[in-house]
Amino acid sequence: MKDPTTIITLTTDFGIRDGFPAAMHGVILSINPEVRIVDLCHGISPGDIAHGAYLLATVTPYFRSGSIHVAVVDPGVGTPRMILAVKTKDQMYIAPDNGLLGYILERQPDAEVRYLENADLWLKNPSSTFHGRDIMAPTAAHLSAGVPFHKVGPIVNTWEPAPFPPAKQTGNMVQGRIIHVDHFGNLITNIPGMTSDSLSIGDRRIEQRGLTFQEGKPGEPIVLVGSSGWLEIAINGDSAVQVLGVTVGDIVTAQVGKNSRGDR
Amino acid sequence: MKDPTTIITLTTDFGIRDGFPAAMHGVILSINPEVRIVDLCHGISPGDIAHGAYLLATVTPYFRSGSIHVAVVDPGVGTPRMILAVKTKDQMYIAPDNGLLGYILERQPDAEVRYLENADLWLKNPSSTFHGRDIMAPTAAHLSAGVPFHKVGPIVNTWEPAPFPPAKQTGNMVQGRIIHVDHFGNLITNIPGMTSDSLSIGDRRIEQRGLTFQEGKPGEPIVLVGSSGWLEIAINGDSAVQVLGVTVGDIVTAQVGKNSRGDR
Amino acid sequence: MKDPTTIITLTTDFGIRDGFPAAMHGVILSINPEVRIVDLCHGISPGDIAHGAYLLATVTPYFRSGSIHVAVVDPGVGTPRMILAVKTKDQMYIAPDNGLLGYILERQPDAEVRYLENADLWLKNPSSTFHGRDIMAPTAAHLSAGVPFHKVGPIVNTWEPAPFPPAKQTGNMVQGRIIHVDHFGNLITNIPGMTSDSLSIGDRRIEQRGLTFQEGKPGEPIVLVGSSGWLEIAINGDSAVQVLGVTVGDIVTAQVGKNSRGDR
Repeated sequence: MKDPTTIITLTTDFGIRDGFPAAMHGVILSINPEVRIVDLCHGISPGDIAHGAYLLATVTPYFRSGSIHVAVVDPGVGTPRMILAVKTKDQMYIAPDNGLLGYILERQPDAEVRYLENADLWLKNPSSTFHGRDIMAPTAAHLSAGVPFHKVGPIVNTWEPAPFPPAKQTGNMVQGRIIHVDHFGNLITNIPGMTSDSLSIGDRRIEQRGLTFQEGKPGEPIVLVGSSGWLEIAINGDSAVQVLGVTVGDIVTAQVGKNSRGDR
Repeated sequence: MKDPTTIITLTTDFGIRDGFPAAMHGVILSINPEVRIVDLCHGISPGDIAHGAYLLATVTPYFRSGSIHVAVVDPGVGTPRMILAVKTKDQMYIAPDNGLLGYILERQPDAEVRYLENADLWLKNPSSTFHGRDIMAPTAAHLSAGVPFHKVGPIVNTWEPAPFPPAKQTGNMVQGRIIHVDHFGNLITNIPGMTSDSLSIGDRRIEQRGLTFQEGKPGEPIVLVGSSGWLEIAINGDSAVQVLGVTVGDIVTAQVGKNSRGDR
Repeated sequence: MKDPTTIITLTTDFGIRDGFPAAMHGVILSINPEVRIVDLCHGISPGDIAHGAYLLATVTPYFRSGSIHVAVVDPGVGTPRMILAVKTKDQMYIAPDNGLLGYILERQPDAEVRYLENADLWLKNPSSTFHGRDIMAPTAAHLSAGVPFHKVGPIVNTWEPAPFPPAKQTGNMVQGRIIHVDHFGNLITNIPGMTSDSLSIGDRRIEQRGLTFQEGKPGEPIVLVGSSGWLEIAINGDSAVQVLGVTVGDIVTAQVGKNSRGDR
């Protein structure tokens, strides 16, 4: 049943000073010594579910069929919050039921969703403060070693939604939000890349379109279709988040006009 | 002799801006191309032996039998300090003799301890400033490829102790220390999780017990048994280290009373 | 053709908060599920080509014959800058043509250098902002799976030079530069380790030689041959870059005298 090319990815807010991610590696490799582990990201801001949800939605599509993604941004660890396991057409996900998997579930309405309840797949005597190590990692390892998905626990039909609702079109206006700020200070919206001519954020209107980060005059924001397929706001050689003074969750409005690109 | 599921872990204070950890990967894989390498942590504060010793003690037990752990927090590199190799019942460790392996050796009194002296297992002409790459990594790689442990060098019987002494019980008081502050600002003590009813640090007394980080009123510290099995001090939604203004090494006193839990 | 011990390394300025490096892992493993990936460094300062070029020059020599090194410090992504593929005697490199491979190419004058132009080796419809994921990673994966090097694109004969010129000897003076500041604040020059008796930077002269970071009085800078084989300036227990107030690119002059060591 074991395939040595199966991948488990880990996404956490554990940072780089502690050994929490490594403890998860250790647990996984004790159960399935041959699985491959990829650290998707451990630099999620502590407790920042929106940050984690964005990364899962934009990065996991680049992984092979059969990959298993474990996400631990879990401020409610040890409280009655449940842990979800999700099986989409070709991948699996394990994460607390707090919205982390919200974007994945929006896009995959046919996904099979279960609660993690089968303690046979966990470490013995799990701690109440580190379910990533004691419950999620071992369950993922057992799945990677061939345990059937339905063994993890019962099917459920409701779950926490994504941190922000999808962008919504009304007439020729699309209203979305800043859902992520990347390492370079670029502002990523949840407005699909095809819709925009110009874009407004607060009382600022951005009309300059670009294809690359090198376009636009110094200090002048431009709109471009980012590598995740959504509209981004960037400033050539500068940090858009600092210059514009906006934040994740801020509302962005895009005007759909005659120049809109529908061919992407 | 080679087992492709053997694991070498790396724990260093090299940070994320340099290529020092990667150079160790390169050296190891040149000697044993099939071994698996796990980055346990490279974010130890520069020269902070207490930080490294804590991570080794709490994370390495989650690794499989046969794993080899290399730790390089080595402010004395190139001076006459020796490098230890330790073989416990089921794992091996390599680290400078500066207390990094202190907690491991306290818990494993039957461990076999040797100095690294066999230059046949090192890179040729090792530098005097990077023994992690030139001496420790290649020795670990040779061990992972089947070289017998006794080949690394002679047995020794003394070594630097752990950075802090174990917690000590006198009557119904247990005195220990803050031995680590994690990424979330939680204070980890070296007092075993079973002993405490209330806990004093400086002139502050903490009586509120909890099972999870979500308990306690905002701003109020609680005591819980952390995921490493030791008592921790946490504040719901806040950083205990910032609120309480304490530091690693500070003395903590736990009172053992009628409600103490000995069943963990 | 596939060898499961082949290594692809990744060097980027993507930092630790985003999923860009993981997306590259995902793309590579979708093409060659068995290749081994090593994160050489993702902590290059944003857009800092000198930083990336230094790491590639000093770390990649520790990797096995056949390794493939991908470097993405790419402020010009999407502009007409080209992407280079380099084949040296025993390794391969892929990086934007912006000087990142400058030191490698100086040292390997017989290297075969090509432009990446074969879109059959890329993802379909590559974005204009993330060539690391869409062009460089998949090309590297195909090379690791046995695609011959000449398939990547046409041979070229000119490229961007390294960020700083090599050190130059005139009489008994060698003039070089600070080309890197490491995590510990040590200043690494591009002056080979054999040449110096004393060293001047600005109007400061450093005469104290050492073999290890522990030498020198507190606060007093010393010169030593670093682990990369070049002269470094360090201060025992302190950060040389902070104490001396210098920066990458500053000129350093070494005096070659009767005590110079040529035997390294």
